[in-house]
Amino acid sequence: MTEADETLGALGESAVLRRIFPRLPDAASALLGPGDDAAVVAAPDGRFVVTTDTLVHGPDFRHAWSSPFQLGWKAAATNLADVAAVGARPTALVVALVAPASTPAAWLEAFADGLRESCAALAPGCGVVGGDLSVSDQLTVAVTAFGDLEGRAPVLRSGARAGDIVAVCGELGLAGRGLELLFERGVGHAGEPDADAATALRPTFDRELDAQLAPHPPIGSGVVAARAGATAMMDVSDGLALDARRLAEASGVVLDLDAVAVGSPLALTGGEDHALLATFPAPRELPAGFRPIGRVVAGAPELRVDGRAFTRRGGWDPYADWDGGSG
Amino acid sequence: MTEADETLGALGESAVLRRIFPRLPDAASALLGPGDDAAVVAAPDGRFVVTTDTLVHGPDFRHAWSSPFQLGWKAAATNLADVAAVGARPTALVVALVAPASTPAAWLEAFADGLRESCAALAPGCGVVGGDLSVSDQLTVAVTAFGDLEGRAPVLRSGARAGDIVAVCGELGLAGRGLELLFERGVGHAGEPDADAATALRPTFDRELDAQLAPHPPIGSGVVAARAGATAMMDVSDGLALDARRLAEASGVVLDLDAVAVGSPLALTGGEDHALLATFPAPRELPAGFRPIGRVVAGAPELRVDGRAFTRRGGWDPYADWDGGSG
Repeated sequence: MTEADETLGALGESAVLRRIFPRLPDAASALLGPGDDAAVVAAPDGRFVVTTDTLVHGPDFRHAWSSPFQLGWKAAATNLADVAAVGARPTALVVALVAPASTPAAWLEAFADGLRESCAALAPGCGVVGGDLSVSDQLTVAVTAFGDLEGRAPVLRSGARAGDIVAVCGELGLAGRGLELLFERGVGHAGEPDADAATALRPTFDRELDAQLAPHPPIGSGVVAARAGATAMMDVSDGLALDARRLAEASGVVLDLDAVAVGSPLALTGGEDHALLATFPAPRELPAGFRPIGRVVAGAPELRVDGRAFTRRGGWDPYADWDGGSG
Repeated sequence: MTEADETLGALGESAVLRRIFPRLPDAASALLGPGDDAAVVAAPDGRFVVTTDTLVHGPDFRHAWSSPFQLGWKAAATNLADVAAVGARPTALVVALVAPASTPAAWLEAFADGLRESCAALAPGCGVVGGDLSVSDQLTVAVTAFGDLEGRAPVLRSGARAGDIVAVCGELGLAGRGLELLFERGVGHAGEPDADAATALRPTFDRELDAQLAPHPPIGSGVVAARAGATAMMDVSDGLALDARRLAEASGVVLDLDAVAVGSPLALTGGEDHALLATFPAPRELPAGFRPIGRVVAGAPELRVDGRAFTRRGGWDPYADWDGGSG
């Protein structure tokens, strides 16, 4: 059998799973792993944190730009970031993958390698405890991630109070710039995503492209912020402006950001940062990794920048913003 | 705004979520429900059961045959069945839905109604604690379900021992017959799925169609079997022959089924029964709902029917078996 014959369709589900299982990361919390109808995961404090997020070919990634390793990495990282955002330690993932029958088994192996290396780098001990493999015309990855609050209360979006410091941990705007670069210069003559054009952007734009394609969210800082008394927290995934407004609305407060501290305009409107946005009681020394970008003020919920209402939407709405392209 | 304008694309993600949230079932185990970056679910015995399963437009359902209510019902039911299959009580679901921007919001409302009614009928107290909504050309539903073992050990596929009784709870072959009927007679002149032709099969074939489109797996019987000392158990989702062979292999035993007790040939090879296949020590009275269909015999793992090896594959492999049709 040549490598070209080794597609999911040619091999079938069972043979593909036998090749993937050994590459998946083990979860220290797994009491019963993949292979039965359901897995069993430890929840030492009698609760578990759960979040789910999907990556769809077309709106969320392009094969010309993302390697399977990067896609596996990102699918884990974005979900781990949501676990961290409530102050929990990630423990386990389940992964549902629907892929065309023509997908090479080697593609899935590299995807599994990305899941494994992402967990190892960002959340050691977290692993894959189960999943589902099915067929589709449009490759879609749905990851569900679990976490352990270690006895703490979850840090919600709704806890910010007037007088708190607004702080952020992680890069802002870099992932959005990476996506801009890919759409502007990672394309062929007809504007279609092009692997060679994207590769030519390296090494000059390594930081921007890596932030977009294989992000390193500050997963451990979620627990650090919770221990340091964060009053509210969330993952910045849809652009700081949109997400800060959501936190303001959930908490019933005004968030007033300092434009200089925030940085570039893209830091406000670019998406997929996976930074942690948090509020802390003032005066207080911020925990390691967090930098102040504004303050919480009483008033009808809104976002302000340098004291003025900031109403531009920014961010990303999958229904309003996807142009239908893939490639 | 007319109803025709009320698509996911016209309304946008936030407005759609506001319409869906009130229709979703509450989970008694939810300590923190949808709306934050992650949910928090109770796990009273310090562990949780988790399973995930996907329904993809084309290979798994057709719009001409499945209403959105039925699809929501089935997406919950099939996952609840996997929780039941290890002997756990279902507690919560998370639901990732990727759908075309042209999908009417009313479609999603009916889908949410199906999730709610399925949980209410099959696993009271189980509800939706989180989810994700995104855009895709190909409608795909990925559900992850959770359960509580209430202090018991999970019932695995690997526990069957020579001398055990093989038993089943739930219908066999009915869902497979429903699918046959739809492909044979629920189609138009060109063989395409046709809603009117499918409707004409009712009420004569109500039982077959309902088993296929909105199944009622015996969810509560999973806990009953575990309490009654089941040595092995699994959900029959890919056809009894294929799944019984999997149980035989996991346990390192022979399963010898009685053809008369099993029933029609479709009971062996039809898929999507979502019956519970279990083994119990003999001699023992089987728990309510279970009927004997064979016995466990020592030997190199295989499936036998009336003492003869049964090697036909049956069942469903998504990569080998989907013809690419949708509609």
